[in-house]
Amino acid sequence: MACPLCASYNENIIKSNNLFRVILVDEIPGFIRIILNKHIAEFSDLNFDEYCEVMKEVYKIEKIIREVLNPDKINVASLGNYVPHLHIHIIPRYKNDAWFPDSIWSEKHRSYKYKTTQKQIEELVERIKNGQ
Amino acid sequence: MACPLCASYNENIIKSNNLFRVILVDEIPGFIRIILNKHIAEFSDLNFDEYCEVMKEVYKIEKIIREVLNPDKINVASLGNYVPHLHIHIIPRYKNDAWFPDSIWSEKHRSYKYKTTQKQIEELVERIKNGQ
Repeated sequence: MACPLCASYNENIIKSNNLFRVILVDEIPGFIRIILNKHIAEFSDLNFDEYCEVMKEVYKIEKIIREVLNPDKINVASLGNYVPHLHIHIIPRYKNDAWFPDSIWSEKHRSYKYKTTQKQIEELVERIKNGQ
Repeated sequence: MACPLCASYNENIIKSNNLFRVILVDEIPGFIRIILNKHIAEFSDLNFDEYCEVMKEVYKIEKIIREVLNPDKINVASLGNYVPHLHIHIIPRYKNDAWFPDSIWSEKHRSYKYKTTQKQIEELVERIKNGQ
């Protein structure tokens, strides 16, 4: 079966380079995913320089999400059990969101209406694109 | 309420430095957690040099876990919704472990007996201690 992350299908790509692409994920406003271009499963399949480049992007994106959306918490995770093609989730969390305080991979506790505005998402995308 | 990660209580510490400590977590054989010493919630509360130092440790530990335990997948995650004191989980996963392919924060699907030996855990701890 073809890997669903090897080709970029129906993704909202914010930026991309030789190593990875950064996408805006629909599920949660401001949910960002970094997807490696190469079909590798783990961080340590990257050489150390590549790893540092990816991790620098995580740091920058986390900072931008905090500044633009001011969430109660950020969750950063790389699981890949379903799709073993390296990708990193950067997720803004709010104290009364559907899963809080559990992970978004847990059962939902309640329904939640995000207060995030379209203007904030546009600013987020613009700043991630510019890298600051 | 005091933060349960500010003081090291009943932890199996493998190594520690000024910035963080690395502990062996009982729950899953070879489950490693990096806990920052400072009470901060997010990666971007670290300065960039500190962040790189922590991330370098994640990379090294992931590599060692793979070499010693050869799991089917590694999960790396920093959530902190319950305890907003920065810590990173590095988790060896196996295709028929209790939660697979879901996260360890999801419902268990089955029971699972790890084949990991005490000798492997000792090697893992030794190598993490030595940083290679």
